[in-house]
Amino acid sequence: MSISRTNITHPFLDDDGDKLREECGVFGAINAADAAAATALGLHALQHRGQEAVGITSYDGKEFFSRRGLGHVAENFSSSEAISELPGNMASGHVRYSTTGGAGLRNVQPLYAELASGGFAVAHNGNFSNAQSLRKDLVNKGSIFQSTSDTEVIIHLVATSRYPTIADRLIDALRLVEGAYALIVTTPEGMIACRDPLGIRPLVMGRMGEAVVFASESVAFDVIGAELIREVEPGEMIQVDFEGEIKSLHPFGKQPSRPCIFEHVYFSRPDSIFAGRSVYEARKAIGAQLAMESPCEVDLVVPVPDSGVPAAIGYAQESGIPFELGIIRSHYVGRTFIQPSDSARTSGVKRKHNANRGLVEGKKIVLIDDSIVRGTTSLKIVEMMREAGAAEVHFRVASPPTAHSCFYGVDTPERSKLLAARMDIEPMREFIQADSLAFISIDGLYRAVGSETRDKACPQFCDACFTGEYPTTLTDFNQTDQKSAELPFADPKAA
Amino acid sequence: MSISRTNITHPFLDDDGDKLREECGVFGAINAADAAAATALGLHALQHRGQEAVGITSYDGKEFFSRRGLGHVAENFSSSEAISELPGNMASGHVRYSTTGGAGLRNVQPLYAELASGGFAVAHNGNFSNAQSLRKDLVNKGSIFQSTSDTEVIIHLVATSRYPTIADRLIDALRLVEGAYALIVTTPEGMIACRDPLGIRPLVMGRMGEAVVFASESVAFDVIGAELIREVEPGEMIQVDFEGEIKSLHPFGKQPSRPCIFEHVYFSRPDSIFAGRSVYEARKAIGAQLAMESPCEVDLVVPVPDSGVPAAIGYAQESGIPFELGIIRSHYVGRTFIQPSDSARTSGVKRKHNANRGLVEGKKIVLIDDSIVRGTTSLKIVEMMREAGAAEVHFRVASPPTAHSCFYGVDTPERSKLLAARMDIEPMREFIQADSLAFISIDGLYRAVGSETRDKACPQFCDACFTGEYPTTLTDFNQTDQKSAELPFADPKAA
Amino acid sequence: MSISRTNITHPFLDDDGDKLREECGVFGAINAADAAAATALGLHALQHRGQEAVGITSYDGKEFFSRRGLGHVAENFSSSEAISELPGNMASGHVRYSTTGGAGLRNVQPLYAELASGGFAVAHNGNFSNAQSLRKDLVNKGSIFQSTSDTEVIIHLVATSRYPTIADRLIDALRLVEGAYALIVTTPEGMIACRDPLGIRPLVMGRMGEAVVFASESVAFDVIGAELIREVEPGEMIQVDFEGEIKSLHPFGKQPSRPCIFEHVYFSRPDSIFAGRSVYEARKAIGAQLAMESPCEVDLVVPVPDSGVPAAIGYAQESGIPFELGIIRSHYVGRTFIQPSDSARTSGVKRKHNANRGLVEGKKIVLIDDSIVRGTTSLKIVEMMREAGAAEVHFRVASPPTAHSCFYGVDTPERSKLLAARMDIEPMREFIQADSLAFISIDGLYRAVGSETRDKACPQFCDACFTGEYPTTLTDFNQTDQKSAELPFADPKAA
Amino acid sequence: MSISRTNITHPFLDDDGDKLREECGVFGAINAADAAAATALGLHALQHRGQEAVGITSYDGKEFFSRRGLGHVAENFSSSEAISELPGNMASGHVRYSTTGGAGLRNVQPLYAELASGGFAVAHNGNFSNAQSLRKDLVNKGSIFQSTSDTEVIIHLVATSRYPTIADRLIDALRLVEGAYALIVTTPEGMIACRDPLGIRPLVMGRMGEAVVFASESVAFDVIGAELIREVEPGEMIQVDFEGEIKSLHPFGKQPSRPCIFEHVYFSRPDSIFAGRSVYEARKAIGAQLAMESPCEVDLVVPVPDSGVPAAIGYAQESGIPFELGIIRSHYVGRTFIQPSDSARTSGVKRKHNANRGLVEGKKIVLIDDSIVRGTTSLKIVEMMREAGAAEVHFRVASPPTAHSCFYGVDTPERSKLLAARMDIEPMREFIQADSLAFISIDGLYRAVGSETRDKACPQFCDACFTGEYPTTLTDFNQTDQKSAELPFADPKAA
Repeated sequence: MSISRTNITHPFLDDDGDKLREECGVFGAINAADAAAATALGLHALQHRGQEAVGITSYDGKEFFSRRGLGHVAENFSSSEAISELPGNMASGHVRYSTTGGAGLRNVQPLYAELASGGFAVAHNGNFSNAQSLRKDLVNKGSIFQSTSDTEVIIHLVATSRYPTIADRLIDALRLVEGAYALIVTTPEGMIACRDPLGIRPLVMGRMGEAVVFASESVAFDVIGAELIREVEPGEMIQVDFEGEIKSLHPFGKQPSRPCIFEHVYFSRPDSIFAGRSVYEARKAIGAQLAMESPCEVDLVVPVPDSGVPAAIGYAQESGIPFELGIIRSHYVGRTFIQPSDSARTSGVKRKHNANRGLVEGKKIVLIDDSIVRGTTSLKIVEMMREAGAAEVHFRVASPPTAHSCFYGVDTPERSKLLAARMDIEPMREFIQADSLAFISIDGLYRAVGSETRDKACPQFCDACFTGEYPTTLTDFNQTDQKSAELPFADPKAA
Repeated sequence: MSISRTNITHPFLDDDGDKLREECGVFGAINAADAAAATALGLHALQHRGQEAVGITSYDGKEFFSRRGLGHVAENFSSSEAISELPGNMASGHVRYSTTGGAGLRNVQPLYAELASGGFAVAHNGNFSNAQSLRKDLVNKGSIFQSTSDTEVIIHLVATSRYPTIADRLIDALRLVEGAYALIVTTPEGMIACRDPLGIRPLVMGRMGEAVVFASESVAFDVIGAELIREVEPGEMIQVDFEGEIKSLHPFGKQPSRPCIFEHVYFSRPDSIFAGRSVYEARKAIGAQLAMESPCEVDLVVPVPDSGVPAAIGYAQESGIPFELGIIRSHYVGRTFIQPSDSARTSGVKRKHNANRGLVEGKKIVLIDDSIVRGTTSLKIVEMMREAGAAEVHFRVASPPTAHSCFYGVDTPERSKLLAARMDIEPMREFIQADSLAFISIDGLYRAVGSETRDKACPQFCDACFTGEYPTTLTDFNQTDQKSAELPFADPKAA
Repeated sequence: MSISRTNITHPFLDDDGDKLREECGVFGAINAADAAAATALGLHALQHRGQEAVGITSYDGKEFFSRRGLGHVAENFSSSEAISELPGNMASGHVRYSTTGGAGLRNVQPLYAELASGGFAVAHNGNFSNAQSLRKDLVNKGSIFQSTSDTEVIIHLVATSRYPTIADRLIDALRLVEGAYALIVTTPEGMIACRDPLGIRPLVMGRMGEAVVFASESVAFDVIGAELIREVEPGEMIQVDFEGEIKSLHPFGKQPSRPCIFEHVYFSRPDSIFAGRSVYEARKAIGAQLAMESPCEVDLVVPVPDSGVPAAIGYAQESGIPFELGIIRSHYVGRTFIQPSDSARTSGVKRKHNANRGLVEGKKIVLIDDSIVRGTTSLKIVEMMREAGAAEVHFRVASPPTAHSCFYGVDTPERSKLLAARMDIEPMREFIQADSLAFISIDGLYRAVGSETRDKACPQFCDACFTGEYPTTLTDFNQTDQKSAELPFADPKAA
Repeated sequence: MSISRTNITHPFLDDDGDKLREECGVFGAINAADAAAATALGLHALQHRGQEAVGITSYDGKEFFSRRGLGHVAENFSSSEAISELPGNMASGHVRYSTTGGAGLRNVQPLYAELASGGFAVAHNGNFSNAQSLRKDLVNKGSIFQSTSDTEVIIHLVATSRYPTIADRLIDALRLVEGAYALIVTTPEGMIACRDPLGIRPLVMGRMGEAVVFASESVAFDVIGAELIREVEPGEMIQVDFEGEIKSLHPFGKQPSRPCIFEHVYFSRPDSIFAGRSVYEARKAIGAQLAMESPCEVDLVVPVPDSGVPAAIGYAQESGIPFELGIIRSHYVGRTFIQPSDSARTSGVKRKHNANRGLVEGKKIVLIDDSIVRGTTSLKIVEMMREAGAAEVHFRVASPPTAHSCFYGVDTPERSKLLAARMDIEPMREFIQADSLAFISIDGLYRAVGSETRDKACPQFCDACFTGEYPTTLTDFNQTDQKSAELPFADPKAA
């Protein structure tokens, strides 16, 4: 099977893996006339959350149907043939960042199993921090795993639970897991959506006529004409049956929520509403806050496209300095090309970003980017601007230094590769060769996304990638090693 | 061969065919150590000029090598395997907008033939307006055509010319053709680049160390680290041999040039230099001129992404109204999805463009787009903004009304489908349901791109799509019919 | 994945499904330097036992490797790339007759699971007659099945067994199953080969230098240069470890064997040794016996190619009538072609078998075929010979009438489609339009394959397809219904 | 495009290239309701004449349609989709032995061109011995060749001929060519079938209702239910128009015919009628003649399957020694497998042919094969029989020693690789390690195929591969060099 990888690219993402990556998006629809078609469109709007693989499972009242593939939603689910393989008025789907090779199809979600109670499919965004331990126990008792996915642990826990109902079995299972999850489960009795007790990963609920829909982000509702109702609450389990009845449980009690603040910084689409706030507005506010905290005297505010654009607009409006497209982004990216040896400066090859030379020549500029991860892309972009004749190149970052790995479903480079884990601001500036460098403060970030200030005792968001303060225990990982990036198991993999 | 069409999309193009489309891009490199790799990268930077098919031909001093495929440059030429099939220090390539089906591979350029003088390859951007007549003559004399491409006419004219040298044979051939062309020819003696006497289609010359390079746009030089030397002049034929000697001829005499003004409006990338001027600056100037000609009292200036962005920045800077991303563009487009019937408003489905509701709700906005062709997309976008709660929606267009077909290598809908050929401005406004609608004036456009005013007797650009004043005779097309869009042959097809 | 089905054909099989089909072949090699390569060659020699799918699993002392695909062994395992994915000195493989669709890959064997004791792979030829019942029990206790294959039941029984060693767990599991099996199991401790207590399905053991090999038929040893040692005995379990130690157990006691007599009639290759006798010799003896039982006065003995050839040689030698190729078989079969409506007699289209008209015109002939299943092919062949001008067409069959379904791993049409289940000999003759029709007698068949006569109390072979005397209980199938072909579950599926 | 090469095998051909290969088969049908379907079936019956590529061209009264592919007819033309692309009541097709790579599709016939007179398609079996000279002249005058096929010469000669009618242009063209051809030409006026003046390559004419059909062999008529009318005569040109009118011309005068005698020995299917005689009967007669010329005292006559079978039956009947299948042929061949190094005797690997050990052990046998080309296969088979325990292995060959290359459309190894060109009979016997070796005499061969004796002055067949007496001049090849196998051009390639 030859799958074209062309243009498999995060809209805001570079080739070098120099961004954090949200690893999954989930979508579900029940009591919808064309549940699979709605799911395909919804997942398409969530494509930025995972580009490597996609799957949809549907239920027609009698049987479950499943289809999955490597690559984009459009590659796998845009045809009527594909959709017609997925009949029924309930469907759930999943986009996923990482799988490798054909065998990887086993790991493509929704995962499905035939339990004694009937079919059971689950789509999961997040990561369990005790998956290895649970898996070992289950295998010792005779469970046979089909995949390497953490998500499969849930299925075996449900299969071997002694409770009578599916909902009770699922609660029984989730009580054993630790970490972050937004789950959409489908069974012959209907759909169950639930979110971990801290609500680390996002999940929203909407309505489209008779249908109830769930998605990782509200933008998935816009594309199908559904209405956003509310967020699924942290620790909430919502059951929807085929009569349309909706039940909400909080089986694990209630706790203060700690959603991932990086959704505001980078993961979510700017036209989504996250944690009650427009992501575009949040990013503009971050840019404005950054302009207040770290102003600079330049001729032009230049976004690193595309993710830096809203913050750059905010920075420009706050500072009064013109916003200009000093970097033009190619829309045809996704592959590394063979380099001609003749090329004068191979480091200067600009397949993806090209300096708008006529604009920046002789000008002092400030570049606005959302984050610095490894720093390699930032360096290339600064060099590119200098080669194009920029007189000064300043750099402002719309998030605090990213210094810690994520164990909750985000693909982070190992800690030793994080620039901010290795050095302070001034050496970082030197590394990327900027004339000045500043990051937004952690309190400034909280303010921009709508809090007065960060509550040190009980932060309103999960900000572990900036602060190292992990909100859950991490059974599979040695707590000491976490901070030193020496993990007993390989890097955490998310589902 | 199944080729994924996912994301085969013009960066600035909508799915509905509601844009004019540049039909080709060409690139050539001679005396370059890795000519094919440089050509692949150069074509990649020209991808916006043609997304349907791509070919590269190389010459290693003894033999010609050729490889072509449907789809993007990256799909066909990013691997070392592909490049290693194309050895030698001379190569030329072509990206193309339209081919249909597998058999279409015959039409993918560069076209190649073995003549008595040896191999002969040609890459052509443009369109001949007497191709049918020439073809008929050639077939009657025993020439056998392999393709339906107009470009093949050149090859047979050269093959049957009685002149002794390749350059003389090519001049002999081009003397017979009428229309627009930018050609890159490769032979065992070297490379010949030439441009039609009016210079309608663009062609620039650059240098990369010892190598001489040619391309449709200067952005192709940036990506390989080559330096822009100058434009190939209208009617100029430049020969470069393997010693590096460069000869320039003007075999058809010199005439005032008339390059295509739409390159400034839409075709060229904003980071290219066209006709001596930064395209980004030209577009900003168009936006500013539009703000002066047709101001409006609104809260936000909103570009129709992505092609409307530079003009919107110009409009915002001139008017002092904030520039905001009121429409968010998905980067994962290219396919039509099956629509769920449940979807409340199927017309409102926004796979590609989504309203930034939080921003526009309750606001008066002006949308800036580069052109209106059929008008269907403009209507959808206005509707989308209203549904998102915009209080007023005004529309400003960065080009004059497009009312005539192009016969010079641009894919235009048949005239009867052009909104501006069917109605005046006020009915157009009504059709797209905007609160107001204005186009830039033709003189304003000339001013923005650097002329004092349009020279009516001898316009400085080809602007036939706006004015109907075609700068050449059109032998294959009935002059009367041109204006009524009733063509004796099917729609003109470009090569 | 597009897999060419061309020439996927049983050498002796027609397109119409008008043969019984052996459903699987197995092969295993341990302590072999290139175990996977030997397995691929061995399976290739067993290709006639299953053409739809193939898999190989290897073990390199640390890890298991697996590769499987639809189609032939040669399509999937002839390349060094394929083999290099399967390192180690132990491997087992499986060819399989039936899977449908891509998802069918789940059912392609060897099946593999990671148990608490480590990897466990199993290749199975045969069918369990209580698989449904066992499966239901397992699911109720929390086992999750990956496939619809009966074979998976073994894996879950082993996974949940409470015995400490793999051998004991396997015995524990097999004690619960009922039916026919020849199994090759691989674990980190070595290879286990075993055969059901009646030895219904074949399994032989051989040696190649240090290596021990197992296969469904001895012909698989010829192709790799291995030596046939002996049959695995009915009910025997042979363990081979990585030191080369071989242990033989008979955990279920010893019983008289009842191997499938159809292996002699049709399934096995003529160059195999089955149940101690050359298959080619057995078939010639069947032909000779048939000539004695049912002679006829004709000019030519004509085999229905290719499976009827050895019996026809035997018939010709016994009768003294010349053996001639009256039917020429095309070697390029496997697909149904669109028929031209012009074709004079569409029924006469002979893509696969063509009459050798020059030979048979005006002659009296006797056709020799191995069996009659549905009778449709026999009819076509008789018609074809008459159209070619044969004066008389007699028909002799090298097996008794096939009147009962097989539940032990052979694909039989449902009973109502078996010609011999529906009518007596004379109506059968009329149906196939032969001048005379005779089958070998059941006792004659026993005599030809080496027994004095059939032991009615305890037959020396399983001959249930002829006699309806099934040698095991059939839990999943209603005993009464067996004979009426009304099964509570769908047709039995073999693994 | 990935095309499975599995089982692409000549039915009578070994993997080692150790046979002469007929390089093409042609078929045509006019005034047939489903001309393309009939052509597909007809080509399928001619598949043994070329397995590498296949093409069909049809004409529906207005347009020509064409489809071609690598691989078998069944892979490319068995589906209704494929056939529905080829509408009309006239079609012609071609199977071809050799093409290499995807670009090879250019060489797949029928070749097609649009001439001033309209479409012109040609399917050609044979080889021109002055193709290079003609091609050079045409290119010098401006003709552009699309393929490397000799057949294209005909098209350009027709295109540039000054005669008014297609028939006259074709005669004009054929007058210039030298060598062997059987051609089927289709034009908007109908079908033209013609054969070179000596009738070297075969071509027969048939009728199916209103339709007239042509084919390389009569077996193609059997499969579609058409009736064989007669051979197309040497030098005859038959025109059939859409009214059904048939015209026969002999534009080059009449000469004694010299059809290829190897069609009787090996190329044609045994169920074809060639040169008025049943091929099966001819082969049996060859076997009988061989038994008379070179008897031997053995226990068994063993054919080398499958091509040696009819001669072996003839030998057995004449000698009274039993015919037995001492070698069993696998039906699943076509690929070379990776060899396990453990294999005791890698030379003994018998993927394709396996000794029937039970039969030959301790026996004296004579092997019957159709020809010896390089001798490598013969050696392997003799070795295999000895390893299986044969007491004596004699070898008899159903053709004289093959000592000369063919220039008329048969793929022969270069002369230096022909065993009979390098040594006499006794060294050959030693080389293949047989106990005795004999070939049929040339006069014996003529007698067996129906002549009294070979007419030395004017042989009744082309037998140049045995005698070196080439019946035509060979312009492209130096006459002296022919016999020394030193050719100025590469090996002759056939179309």
